[in-house]
Amino acid sequence: MTYTVDDTLKVLILGGDGFCGWPTALHLSAAGHTVAIADNFSRRKIDEELGTNSLTPIAPLKTRISVWENLTGKSILFDQIDVARDYERFLELIVNFRPDAIVHFAEQRAAPYSMKSAATKRYTVNNNTNATHNVLCALVDSGIDAHLVHLGTMGVYGYGWSGSMPVPEGYVQVKLIGKDTEMEREILHPANPGSVYHMSKTMDQLMFGFYAKNDGVRVTDLHQGIVWGTQTSETGLDERLINRFDYDGDYGTVLNRFLMQAAIGHPLTIYGSGRQTRAFIHIRDTVRCIELAILNPPEQGDKPSIFNQVTETHRLMDLAALVSELTDAKIDYLPNPRVEAAENELVVDNSKFLELGLNTTTLSEGLLTEIHDIAKKYLDRADISTILPTSFWRRQSLTRAKKTKVRVID
Amino acid sequence: MTYTVDDTLKVLILGGDGFCGWPTALHLSAAGHTVAIADNFSRRKIDEELGTNSLTPIAPLKTRISVWENLTGKSILFDQIDVARDYERFLELIVNFRPDAIVHFAEQRAAPYSMKSAATKRYTVNNNTNATHNVLCALVDSGIDAHLVHLGTMGVYGYGWSGSMPVPEGYVQVKLIGKDTEMEREILHPANPGSVYHMSKTMDQLMFGFYAKNDGVRVTDLHQGIVWGTQTSETGLDERLINRFDYDGDYGTVLNRFLMQAAIGHPLTIYGSGRQTRAFIHIRDTVRCIELAILNPPEQGDKPSIFNQVTETHRLMDLAALVSELTDAKIDYLPNPRVEAAENELVVDNSKFLELGLNTTTLSEGLLTEIHDIAKKYLDRADISTILPTSFWRRQSLTRAKKTKVRVID
Repeated sequence: MTYTVDDTLKVLILGGDGFCGWPTALHLSAAGHTVAIADNFSRRKIDEELGTNSLTPIAPLKTRISVWENLTGKSILFDQIDVARDYERFLELIVNFRPDAIVHFAEQRAAPYSMKSAATKRYTVNNNTNATHNVLCALVDSGIDAHLVHLGTMGVYGYGWSGSMPVPEGYVQVKLIGKDTEMEREILHPANPGSVYHMSKTMDQLMFGFYAKNDGVRVTDLHQGIVWGTQTSETGLDERLINRFDYDGDYGTVLNRFLMQAAIGHPLTIYGSGRQTRAFIHIRDTVRCIELAILNPPEQGDKPSIFNQVTETHRLMDLAALVSELTDAKIDYLPNPRVEAAENELVVDNSKFLELGLNTTTLSEGLLTEIHDIAKKYLDRADISTILPTSFWRRQSLTRAKKTKVRVID
Repeated sequence: MTYTVDDTLKVLILGGDGFCGWPTALHLSAAGHTVAIADNFSRRKIDEELGTNSLTPIAPLKTRISVWENLTGKSILFDQIDVARDYERFLELIVNFRPDAIVHFAEQRAAPYSMKSAATKRYTVNNNTNATHNVLCALVDSGIDAHLVHLGTMGVYGYGWSGSMPVPEGYVQVKLIGKDTEMEREILHPANPGSVYHMSKTMDQLMFGFYAKNDGVRVTDLHQGIVWGTQTSETGLDERLINRFDYDGDYGTVLNRFLMQAAIGHPLTIYGSGRQTRAFIHIRDTVRCIELAILNPPEQGDKPSIFNQVTETHRLMDLAALVSELTDAKIDYLPNPRVEAAENELVVDNSKFLELGLNTTTLSEGLLTEIHDIAKKYLDRADISTILPTSFWRRQSLTRAKKTKVRVID
C-alpha cells in the first residue's frame, strides 16, 4: 500500500509541540491530512529546569493551534499525554482517533542533556524506552494497524564502522566467517552509540525489529542528521507560529551555537580538532521527509524500513568557516568534552529519500536567513551565559572542561 | 586482575531471593565470599498475581538467611530494594557495601509471562531496562568499580542465524560487503529475540556495550540456557533452604512441565514438532559458572565479556522421551502457541567456561533426583490446573490455542 500526494491521512504526532514536531504538524495539516498532537510539554519543562528558553518567542500550544485554525481554517486536535507514563490514556486516544500513521518524536533528544547527570541519564532511558514500547504495545493491544514513523538518529551507527563505504540505510550485508564456511547475511547495522541518548535510540531499533517480526507492526525509522534552520513555510506565516531555536549548551546544536556566538561577537568555539564530520538536514526537509515516509509505508510483515534523513555532511571546521565568512566572527579551538574520535570521514547513503523526490535545502542557501531573521532579530532575548556547554561525557572530562571554561571566561 | 579460588570478595546479589539468585547466594557464601542480597520479592508477588506457587515449600527470605547462619555461622546481608525504582536507595547500598562484584538477576525472567498481556509486556520492559540501567548508572555515579555479572539468555541469539556454526560466545567475526571492498569486523552477535523478555535482554546488551566503552564499567554477560534442577549442595542442607520449583504455564520451563505431567499421570505435552532444540544447564552448574565469572573479571576498558552458560542441548522430543523412559508417561503433540521455527539445529560454543574448569551435570544423571525428590515428594502441593500454558504470542495463536485447550480438557 503506497499513498499518493492526494491521499489524506489521519496522523497522530507524539511530541507535536517540539522543535521537529510542531513544524511537522503544520506541514501535514497544510497538506490536507487530519492532524492530532499528543505532548506532555516535557521540552518546555526542561527549559525551566535548565533556566534556558527558546531564542524565538514560542507561543503556548493552544495559541499556536488557534492561530493556525484562524489563518487556514484547518483544525489540529490536541491531547496532553505523557506517552511513557499514561498508557491507558494513550490507548484510549488511538482507539478514538484511529490514526493511519503515528509520528513518534516523544523522546528526550539532546545528547549533552542525556550525559549531564545520573538523573538525566535515567530520565532519558526511562522516558525514551517506555514511550517507544508503549506505542508498540498499544498498537498490538488495540489492533490498530497504524504505520509508526519514528525519529531515530545517524548516531546509532557511530562513525567509521563501515570504513570508506557510505553509511547504508539501516541494514548491511555481511559474510559470517566460520571455520569452513562463509554465509552471507543481512543484518541491522551494528550499533555504536556515543551517548545515553543515542544508546536509547539503538534500543528502540531492537523493539521495532521485534514488534515488526512478531506482530506485523509497520515501522519506518528515520535516522536523522543534525537538524538546522528554524522556520518552514508554515511556521513563518505568523510570528505566533514561530518554531523554537535552542542555543544553550545542552539543546543547541553546533550550528546554532556558532550563529549565536557570531551574533554576540564571541569567537566560534570548536571542541576538538574540528575535523569531526557530521550530517545535516534543514527543518524544511525534515517535514518533507516525514510526509514522504508517511505516504510510503512498509507492508505488514516487512522488517522496519530505515531511511537516512540527511541532505549534506560537513566538517565542523568548514561549518565554522562558512559562518565566519558571513559574519566576520573569529574561530577558537577548545578541548573536547565529548568522548569521540578527533577526526572522521562521513559519507551517507540517502538515496531512498532522493528517489522519493526530496529536493534539498543546502546550508549555503539557508544560512543568511538564520543569521538575520533569527539570531540577530531575537538577540535581545538571549542569555549568553548558557551558550557554552555544561555536560561532560566522563568524570575526567569534567575536570578538564571546568578548567577550560574558566579560561574562556577570562 | 584475576582472582584465585582462595580470594574472598564482597558480592551483592540483585534478585537474590529468586530461583537462581538464592542458590547463588548460598554457593558464594559457602565459598567464603561476603554476600549481600537486594530483592523486592517481585517473583513471590507474581506467584500471588498468577495464583500459583512454587511446588517446593520455600521459606521466607529472613528464615532462609537465619537458617543458613545457624547452620554455617555465615551471615548474609539483606536489603529490600526495587532496583528498577529505588535508585537513591540502591546507590546508598553500594556506597555502603562497596561490592567487588554485583550479580544481576533483578529482571522479569519468563518469556511466556512477558507475552501474557499489555501489562506484563510493559512491566517486563520497564522493570528490566530500568533495573539494568540503574545499576550501570549507579556504578558511574558512585565511582565504585564493581564487576557487573549479568544473567542474559541464549535467546538473544535467536536460532539458526549462524547456520551450522556453533553459536559463538557473544561476538562474531564478519566481512562487511561493500562495492569494491571487504572489511573484516568483530560485531556483537545480531539479536533475534523471540519474546518481549528476550528483547529486553538484547536491549541490556546495548547498555553494557555503551557503559563499558564510555565509562570503563566491567561487565560479564552470561547467556544462559534453560536452567533445570532444583537443589544445590547448599539448598539441600535443610528443607527451610529449599529452592523454588516452578511448574505453571508461565514460569515452569519445559522440563518441569514434563516432570509434573509425569507425576500426575498426564501425557507429556510437546508444543509443535518437538524438533526445537534448546540449551540446558543444571542449577548446580549455574552457581559454579557465576563464581567462575566473578573470579575472572574483564579489565576496565574491555568490551563486555560474554559467556555461553550452557552444558548440553536437547531436542524437546528427546527430552520428553528421556522423562517418558523413567516414568512411563505418554507423549502428546499439541499446536505451538509460540511464534518460532518448527525445527532448529543448535550447537553452542561453551568453551570459555570449560577452559575455566567447569564440570558439568548432565540430564541423564540428575533427572531421577528431580522425579523422586521434587515432583513426587511435593505433589500434594501442586495445583494441576496451572500446568498448561496460558500465554500466547499473537492474537491468531490466542484463538487457535483457546480451541486447543478445550480439546485437551476434553
